[in-house]
Amino acid sequence: MDMIKDGGVSTPLGFRTSAVSADIKGNKKGKSDLGILLSDIPCTVAGVFTQNRVKAAPVISSQNILNGHPEMFGIIANSGNANACTGKKGLEDVKTITKHFEKIFKLPENSLLMSSTGVIGVQLPVEKILGSADELLSKIDDTDEDFTRAIMTTDTFPKSVAILVETENGTFVIGGCAKGAGMISPSMATMLSFITTDAMISRELLQKALDMAVKESFNRITVDGDMSTNDSVYVLANGLSGIAVQNEEGFHQFYEGLKFVCLELAKMIVKDGEGATKLVKIEVKNAMSENDAKKCAFKIGNSPLVKTMLFGNDPNWGRLLASAGASLIEMNPDNIDIYFDNLHYVSSSVIIDTDLESKVHEIMKKDSYTITVDLNYGNAHYGVYTSDLTYDYVKINADYRT
Amino acid sequence: MDMIKDGGVSTPLGFRTSAVSADIKGNKKGKSDLGILLSDIPCTVAGVFTQNRVKAAPVISSQNILNGHPEMFGIIANSGNANACTGKKGLEDVKTITKHFEKIFKLPENSLLMSSTGVIGVQLPVEKILGSADELLSKIDDTDEDFTRAIMTTDTFPKSVAILVETENGTFVIGGCAKGAGMISPSMATMLSFITTDAMISRELLQKALDMAVKESFNRITVDGDMSTNDSVYVLANGLSGIAVQNEEGFHQFYEGLKFVCLELAKMIVKDGEGATKLVKIEVKNAMSENDAKKCAFKIGNSPLVKTMLFGNDPNWGRLLASAGASLIEMNPDNIDIYFDNLHYVSSSVIIDTDLESKVHEIMKKDSYTITVDLNYGNAHYGVYTSDLTYDYVKINADYRT
Repeated sequence: MDMIKDGGVSTPLGFRTSAVSADIKGNKKGKSDLGILLSDIPCTVAGVFTQNRVKAAPVISSQNILNGHPEMFGIIANSGNANACTGKKGLEDVKTITKHFEKIFKLPENSLLMSSTGVIGVQLPVEKILGSADELLSKIDDTDEDFTRAIMTTDTFPKSVAILVETENGTFVIGGCAKGAGMISPSMATMLSFITTDAMISRELLQKALDMAVKESFNRITVDGDMSTNDSVYVLANGLSGIAVQNEEGFHQFYEGLKFVCLELAKMIVKDGEGATKLVKIEVKNAMSENDAKKCAFKIGNSPLVKTMLFGNDPNWGRLLASAGASLIEMNPDNIDIYFDNLHYVSSSVIIDTDLESKVHEIMKKDSYTITVDLNYGNAHYGVYTSDLTYDYVKINADYRT
Repeated sequence: MDMIKDGGVSTPLGFRTSAVSADIKGNKKGKSDLGILLSDIPCTVAGVFTQNRVKAAPVISSQNILNGHPEMFGIIANSGNANACTGKKGLEDVKTITKHFEKIFKLPENSLLMSSTGVIGVQLPVEKILGSADELLSKIDDTDEDFTRAIMTTDTFPKSVAILVETENGTFVIGGCAKGAGMISPSMATMLSFITTDAMISRELLQKALDMAVKESFNRITVDGDMSTNDSVYVLANGLSGIAVQNEEGFHQFYEGLKFVCLELAKMIVKDGEGATKLVKIEVKNAMSENDAKKCAFKIGNSPLVKTMLFGNDPNWGRLLASAGASLIEMNPDNIDIYFDNLHYVSSSVIIDTDLESKVHEIMKKDSYTITVDLNYGNAHYGVYTSDLTYDYVKINADYRT
């Protein structure tokens, strides 16, 4: 498995993209905000969606379509408007738009999905989107940075990755892109991600691999503990590499590749969390059960007091113990060890030596490091990725709509 | 039931306090940080404590003592150091300090409790505290503002209240003070509060009234969703009014008074949440069950995206719907109504008129208002108090120890 330099969602064979500015937010900033991802031939598609009870129209629409297991040609994606909390009109708009694009792109009916991100509670500017279809068609090519940028909202950098998977029968490629930034939370990939592959794989195995990969990646990240109405991860497989994923060994290779792509994108999302300046892995070790380890890791990773301490590079280990205890899992509160990277800092719930504070402070200045909380209470573990809570998070979210 | 102007913890008959600066944080700022609350005669005591698995030494110590239901004379309280994550030494220190104070104040053995708040993971400066006992004794009187200030950490104003309860047999007083500011969360009164009364009441009824009152007050507030190691609410009843709380009617009157005192203190805590600029009540109506309404209200009240929107006075109702949906309770996502105070803003999950935004913006500029989320799905409701998330929250918590 090798990473492909500057690879992305159009790196697998037969995938192309295009993006334009449709002025969706209506502030004429000229940023590209409408894109399309297309395959030359029909694809098998799998998806994982937000569990929020309030789902955006494009999510409801995609779930309905994918339940029928059809083959699809691609996805229309926009930023600037989430098409969430838009009632019946929101669902009708998705239909109107996909229908028009299918006509312009000369595709069969019901072969395009739609995915949206941005402001909630505002109707889509349908005419502007329809009016951009011809320009989108004219710009289609096999690069993808413009598409990746078109789905960005408060993201500060585009997020792409692609890998080459070598099997005994030959190679295939998995590529992907994502947008994140706000509402990044435990319960699901709280973001949009589009993944493509030229491997040949059944819808059933594709969905299984995606479900497993999301659990190990997008479900292990947290920026603010919120959950959006629009979270979606799609994988499109067009089979153009000619390499079939069939037996157990083949599935394993495909899954490992997909997991790698998902995890790389997930980490980029945390790193680019709203206002975030660093990526910190919280590893909880030796809990009674994996569920306990998970509860504890997310409690720590979501704690505003921990996240502000990460921002301030303050080695305030007491807050780590306090938030571990606040998870209410089974533990011996007097027998917890804490490590920053490999530095043993707290033993049996007490700091080993206050002189270590300055060493831990140095570790905390890094862009990325791991905090390990060893409960010494069982043998289950769980890791999550979190970011710091900064002034900029507040700034971005207090002024989001203005 | 009448509020007593400038009343507090020493307003009921027979309670006195004192406070000094013991330089507990070691930065010689001269702020009073050590106080004592005393009754002239022994008191019945009830307490409610943090559910955090990691409990501070004074909490463990008080719980052990109160299990034996003894009568107590008072409580030593300090800020600047939480005596949490301090191992066995922390527990020994509580014993050393209470013993010494009992001697200086000529009280029976085991008649003083201790309560601490401040930095976690640092041993108490025991000598400084012992050395302050004589000065504390010399300053004791029947005012209480100094005591209330002594327990403040990042609080910006002292929090006190007292009320007069009239019964057919005569009157009694309930007074209280509290410190809050950080780690204010759903699972318990994440703060310290000391309440006194000159009513005559059994330990059993006192604990029952406190448990009920805490559920309706301190357990309904949230600043940052964190839970501290030191949360404690104490009530001391010395009976000096001569009014006995016995029958159902008497208990009801006492409970209503205690609830009022707890709720007033709880609201002051939210209002003074770290960096907070406003107090917002989130009222969830017509849920399937009270538990559902509670989950939903806390999910909204804890959401960083909602809390930053409160700071920015941005009437972004979509975030309210999204975070209600993220609570994962049973609901019809297409049939939710939202009100700001009495203004009907969202009907059947869609904004009634975008012209209302400016009116809602005006309501949001107030120091205090109510957001009602009507799920139209059952008949249970629950309200919580929250604050906004501001630049200052980040500033206070990133730099807390420096």
